[in-house]
Amino acid sequence: MSFVEIPKNSPFTYENLPYGVFSTGCETRHRIGVAVGAHVLDLSKVSHLFNGPQLASHQTVFSEPTLNAFMALSRGAWKEARETIITLLNVDNPTLRDDQKLRSSALVPLEDVTMHLPASIGDYTDFYSSIEHATNVGTMFRGPENALMPNWKHLPVGYHGRASSVVVSGTPIRRPNGQTRPKDAEPPVFGPCKLMDFELEMAFFVGGQTNDLGSPIKMEDAEDHIFGMVLMNDWSARDIQKWEYVPLGPFLGKNMGTSISPWVVTMEALAPFQVESPEQNPKPLPYLCHADPYSFDIHLTAAIQGEGMDQPAVVCKTNLKYLYWSMKQQLVHHSITGCNMRPGDLLASGTISGPTEDSFGSMLELCWKGTKTVPLGGDETRKFLKDGDLVVMSGSCEKDGIRIGFGEVTGKVLPAHQL
Amino acid sequence: MSFVEIPKNSPFTYENLPYGVFSTGCETRHRIGVAVGAHVLDLSKVSHLFNGPQLASHQTVFSEPTLNAFMALSRGAWKEARETIITLLNVDNPTLRDDQKLRSSALVPLEDVTMHLPASIGDYTDFYSSIEHATNVGTMFRGPENALMPNWKHLPVGYHGRASSVVVSGTPIRRPNGQTRPKDAEPPVFGPCKLMDFELEMAFFVGGQTNDLGSPIKMEDAEDHIFGMVLMNDWSARDIQKWEYVPLGPFLGKNMGTSISPWVVTMEALAPFQVESPEQNPKPLPYLCHADPYSFDIHLTAAIQGEGMDQPAVVCKTNLKYLYWSMKQQLVHHSITGCNMRPGDLLASGTISGPTEDSFGSMLELCWKGTKTVPLGGDETRKFLKDGDLVVMSGSCEKDGIRIGFGEVTGKVLPAHQL
Ligand SMILES: [Ca+2]
Ligand SMILES: [Ca+2]
Ligand SMILES: [Mg+2]
Ligand SMILES: [Mg+2]
Ligand code: NI
Repeated sequence: MSFVEIPKNSPFTYENLPYGVFSTGCETRHRIGVAVGAHVLDLSKVSHLFNGPQLASHQTVFSEPTLNAFMALSRGAWKEARETIITLLNVDNPTLRDDQKLRSSALVPLEDVTMHLPASIGDYTDFYSSIEHATNVGTMFRGPENALMPNWKHLPVGYHGRASSVVVSGTPIRRPNGQTRPKDAEPPVFGPCKLMDFELEMAFFVGGQTNDLGSPIKMEDAEDHIFGMVLMNDWSARDIQKWEYVPLGPFLGKNMGTSISPWVVTMEALAPFQVESPEQNPKPLPYLCHADPYSFDIHLTAAIQGEGMDQPAVVCKTNLKYLYWSMKQQLVHHSITGCNMRPGDLLASGTISGPTEDSFGSMLELCWKGTKTVPLGGDETRKFLKDGDLVVMSGSCEKDGIRIGFGEVTGKVLPAHQL
Repeated sequence: MSFVEIPKNSPFTYENLPYGVFSTGCETRHRIGVAVGAHVLDLSKVSHLFNGPQLASHQTVFSEPTLNAFMALSRGAWKEARETIITLLNVDNPTLRDDQKLRSSALVPLEDVTMHLPASIGDYTDFYSSIEHATNVGTMFRGPENALMPNWKHLPVGYHGRASSVVVSGTPIRRPNGQTRPKDAEPPVFGPCKLMDFELEMAFFVGGQTNDLGSPIKMEDAEDHIFGMVLMNDWSARDIQKWEYVPLGPFLGKNMGTSISPWVVTMEALAPFQVESPEQNPKPLPYLCHADPYSFDIHLTAAIQGEGMDQPAVVCKTNLKYLYWSMKQQLVHHSITGCNMRPGDLLASGTISGPTEDSFGSMLELCWKGTKTVPLGGDETRKFLKDGDLVVMSGSCEKDGIRIGFGEVTGKVLPAHQL
């Protein structure tokens, strides 16, 4: 138990302790904090207390403006940091509890902070690891017989995303203008995206002493390079995407912004929620196999609040555990050709859809390509997103009285620029 | 004319003055230099001489370990820097010429320097802008009737590459292991790439005060955001690429390394070599149109030196001017949906193939998917690359007695790791 009060329903329990980068009005430099209840523990103010064998000589990582340097340390160092923070916040530990001066400078009310991107993201990759999502999309565009491509069950399909356009929760997203071809027999047209969508995803940050170009990360080492997770909304312009993506994949249809939640929940915090991944049949090639469970029971929701609505209406309830490919498989596959990974790289799951219609992770699937309307309560319905829509995604784990929350990733759709 | 001697056939004439990042054995910090003849002018040693209106308050950019801060200045600043350097090196200017102490510290023999990546590359994009290349590849895989996809002539097709794997010329490239499916009816297999290839490309660095997320770069401003160009070898594992790329595009088949030449030739230096782009029919949508010529007459070659060979054998002679889509069109299209570009971003042309068989920019095309052998002289022939092959690409412009060279981008294929 912590001496810092944890409000009921706070995602940031004493068992969670996620890392983020924040600033305040009176101290505008970006710095690293840990969310605990309704407060942020400013690690730059307590860095001198990280005195364990792993961190004593690395205290400066806690005064950096991003998490990259901390992520670049070892899994042992991450564990030691977590234990140090748990000890520091413990109700029986007077070090911080009774040091009023340190306490008032190091514990900042959550409502006073502005959150920033947790890391400088060198490269961002988006996978396509939900079999339900891939099957839904494949069925819509190619029919149920050819829904999954021949490679899908053999490797975690993915593509490179645009790192510059990853933004922190709360950043408004401008509806893009772009090129589309509404009628197959006619030339393409230019104008605002008409099929603006979200994709409910999660993503993990890479950490540790990563591999050099030319040398893959082995499966037995994969866990040492997965630092922690965030929620992600991979905004998508379906009409732009459809016209551009053959043969080289999604490009501008995904570049108007990709939002992530600001608090990075560590794999240590998530360990109690570890579950088996779905069975893989056919069995993947040996380099992709791991015996231990490495999926997580994380409840996820997506909700939309239109401009006239009082509160967001949940349109999707899904779970990370549905993913066919695990994060370890994604990471190992990504580096198998020798691709060098760097601390702070972001690897996303792809849209997380579940088996039922209310668990589909995108409007494309929820409105089944525009053939159904999605009710938002009252008279409000949607197929795709309207200007002014606020999209709110949240995620949390609960088990044996322990609760871990990711908080939210939100973003509002701004009207397209008149070009 | 410069007081620094320009050896005959040097790519680094007084009219060229490309920027790069280098270090030396006795001074290992990375710093910015300009190649001139057989020397490098160390800009960190002469930064105090940049006293024009644009640069007097920005002299620190010349002491940075990358070109990013310099690239982030305006086109006016780039022009002023070039004029300052031209003046400083002029045969009639005593400032550097007669200051023996400064001269011996600031002019470093080219043979003493180690070159590094010129910029920290936030994002790297690879286009597909050669109609000959796209037609060749399309013909091989889909037949001549469906060679070009319906979108190809309407927009510059491109995809995100892996920024971490961009390396400087001279870095050896490890043949990757990966997943392939040699026989369509059988399961995939794991092992070393059997169809290792190069792609002869050029790329440009983005610069200037770039756009915020949500706001595109307009065509009239595009030129202000193109800093300069390099040669690129986009190494490709054709068998890995073939199995993985549908539907989300090239991924691991391109991640074993992408090599660039170390010297960034500026658009100011290239201006005399400006030529018309090929006619575009159909005319692109208005946002992609520009009236001025913005292609460049740059002669390009690719050569292979096998382990037993005395010198590289040229296998491809092509030219940048063949590209269907211009760099301005690539940049404007890339940002049209609001994608934010950053100084130091690298945008590549895609494989540059010309109209004749000896101008194809990849082994895939030169050996026509393995149906032909490519002679290297003597008994040596190739279809795809062998271990130990050194691939050497070079580029240069020549007109009215003026010559501008890019130097070379080289890389040797190392044997695959035994996994
Ligand atoms: Ca996605
Ligand atoms: Ca390429
Ligand atoms: Mg996105
Ligand atoms: Mg490459
Ligand atoms: Ni308080």
